[in-house]
Amino acid sequence: MRVSYNQLFSLLSDILIEVGLKQHDAEVCAGIFTDNTRDGISSHGVNRFPRFVSQIINEIIQIDNKPEQIGGFGGVERWDGRHGIGPLNACFCIDRAMALAEEHGIGAVALRNTTHWMRGGTYGLRAAERGFYAICWTNTMPNMPPWGATRKLIGNNPIVFALPGEDHPYVLDMAVSQYSYGKLETLRTSGEKLPYPGGFDQSGTLTTDPDAILKTERILPAGMWKGAGLSMILDLFAATLSLGSPTIDIPRKEDNASQMFIALHPGTEEHDQKAMRDIMKRSVTRTKEVCAEFGEEVHFPGEGVFARRKQSDAEGIFVHPDIWNTIESLRSS
Amino acid sequence: MRVSYNQLFSLLSDILIEVGLKQHDAEVCAGIFTDNTRDGISSHGVNRFPRFVSQIINEIIQIDNKPEQIGGFGGVERWDGRHGIGPLNACFCIDRAMALAEEHGIGAVALRNTTHWMRGGTYGLRAAERGFYAICWTNTMPNMPPWGATRKLIGNNPIVFALPGEDHPYVLDMAVSQYSYGKLETLRTSGEKLPYPGGFDQSGTLTTDPDAILKTERILPAGMWKGAGLSMILDLFAATLSLGSPTIDIPRKEDNASQMFIALHPGTEEHDQKAMRDIMKRSVTRTKEVCAEFGEEVHFPGEGVFARRKQSDAEGIFVHPDIWNTIESLRSS
Repeated sequence: MRVSYNQLFSLLSDILIEVGLKQHDAEVCAGIFTDNTRDGISSHGVNRFPRFVSQIINEIIQIDNKPEQIGGFGGVERWDGRHGIGPLNACFCIDRAMALAEEHGIGAVALRNTTHWMRGGTYGLRAAERGFYAICWTNTMPNMPPWGATRKLIGNNPIVFALPGEDHPYVLDMAVSQYSYGKLETLRTSGEKLPYPGGFDQSGTLTTDPDAILKTERILPAGMWKGAGLSMILDLFAATLSLGSPTIDIPRKEDNASQMFIALHPGTEEHDQKAMRDIMKRSVTRTKEVCAEFGEEVHFPGEGVFARRKQSDAEGIFVHPDIWNTIESLRSS
Repeated sequence: MRVSYNQLFSLLSDILIEVGLKQHDAEVCAGIFTDNTRDGISSHGVNRFPRFVSQIINEIIQIDNKPEQIGGFGGVERWDGRHGIGPLNACFCIDRAMALAEEHGIGAVALRNTTHWMRGGTYGLRAAERGFYAICWTNTMPNMPPWGATRKLIGNNPIVFALPGEDHPYVLDMAVSQYSYGKLETLRTSGEKLPYPGGFDQSGTLTTDPDAILKTERILPAGMWKGAGLSMILDLFAATLSLGSPTIDIPRKEDNASQMFIALHPGTEEHDQKAMRDIMKRSVTRTKEVCAEFGEEVHFPGEGVFARRKQSDAEGIFVHPDIWNTIESLRSS
């Protein structure tokens, strides 16, 4: 089914107010869940909303706690998220990073003890839409084996790079696992195989069978040893800079993640701004042109997101009817 | 054969002085090539030295050109490398980023028109050994197809993350292709297959046959669409922020690469420093302990480098005799 932006936004914000969020907080969160769904990232939009509400009800997310500064030097600050609302903590920190970048050219905020931020792209886009370059990442609970191991000990630590563009920002938002558990579960349910190997089976062989991977939980790091190394180094950066928890100390409820938010001000000189736009346009256009000569089509990071956003704006936002009903049932009135 | 640090260093610096480098520049470059070889990265140490010399002789590398500042705002600066010596330009820029971080907490330098920096890890380690966190990357000439395309249009854009550690820094230095061309060539020569698929054959199928991949030049991005996206976004960042060239405009001689150097000061408070070391130790030790319980061993990024360095310090630095002879033949006297 397809619903209007306002229809979805109102439903979500009504529920969040009912479970105790202040109106402003409820509206910001509802906006983020609605935006993510509109952009086609339902996994971190409507599909995850019931779990978000349940974590609020169970006080894993402590809705009245606001982030508290625990240190800083110039353009670098450390904050404690105090197990507050993950998306609000993350908005706060990317906004701080932008404020620091306004002052210092570049700013970095390390955040500890925060709950799930949902979709990393939200914070990259938030910065890029205001004219900043951004790099953000989070650690997660252990959900992937290190390279050469069989047990889940490292995180799939999503990382986001975003920069302003002419028509829309470019944004890369990727977990460092090749596939998400959500993707594996979807394909198992539909009886399909993965397009490329996504993990190891019981015998330690790479496989495209989602069921075999879900049984071993040995999901493949993106780029194998490279994704595993990236996971480890992102965790070391975020956990130490925030004085927070590394992946190995993050429980299943993931209420103490460590995150990094870097914002970079690209300068204010008009001719530099124009030069930057020209370089970007040249890169994107020329790469696509060469591909087109061979009948091929390629996408730059974020183009898919904005295509889906456009479609949602034209046709309404897609929500699976089961999810819609589940969410509706959360509303008491 | 194994040679001493001084033996290798002297040979390289003698040659560089002969081809026109000032003594100080020659020694810094010889030190970098020697260090890279000592760390087991011969591909960007001795093995690449003859090509470096040839690029100097052919004036692709313009040895008297020093970087020139073209802009900046607070902790962010843009520099033009003026086709000077890549490793010296890169040292200069990471040093500038550290100086900016001393002042602003975090600093970023974007560099354009620079020649090959050799090994990215050099600059990450340089910062980490001085107590900074660093993120550096470079774009390259087109050497990899975008996901869904068959022609080389994007770069394998190496990226480096480095941070100080207790016994040694941790450093991740990875190109965003799954394997390097050097690795493919080595295995083709020895008649071996790749351990995991590393590219596409003529029929567009993923293969472990290095010869088939070298024929199509369709090397695999690390993490497939993820590595391709990472390549694109790193290129857009570096090229636009430096007002330099994107991959699509970088010729085979690679004398106009665009690079980024970010250094972050972790703060000076003694108890924070201690807390950071404890968090790092906890993460590394606990992860290894759990693996050990299952008879498995894992490595954190950079541990291999420092193990090889230790071996080189004890036994001498490994140099293939053919390479040694080739380099010796470059010395006229």
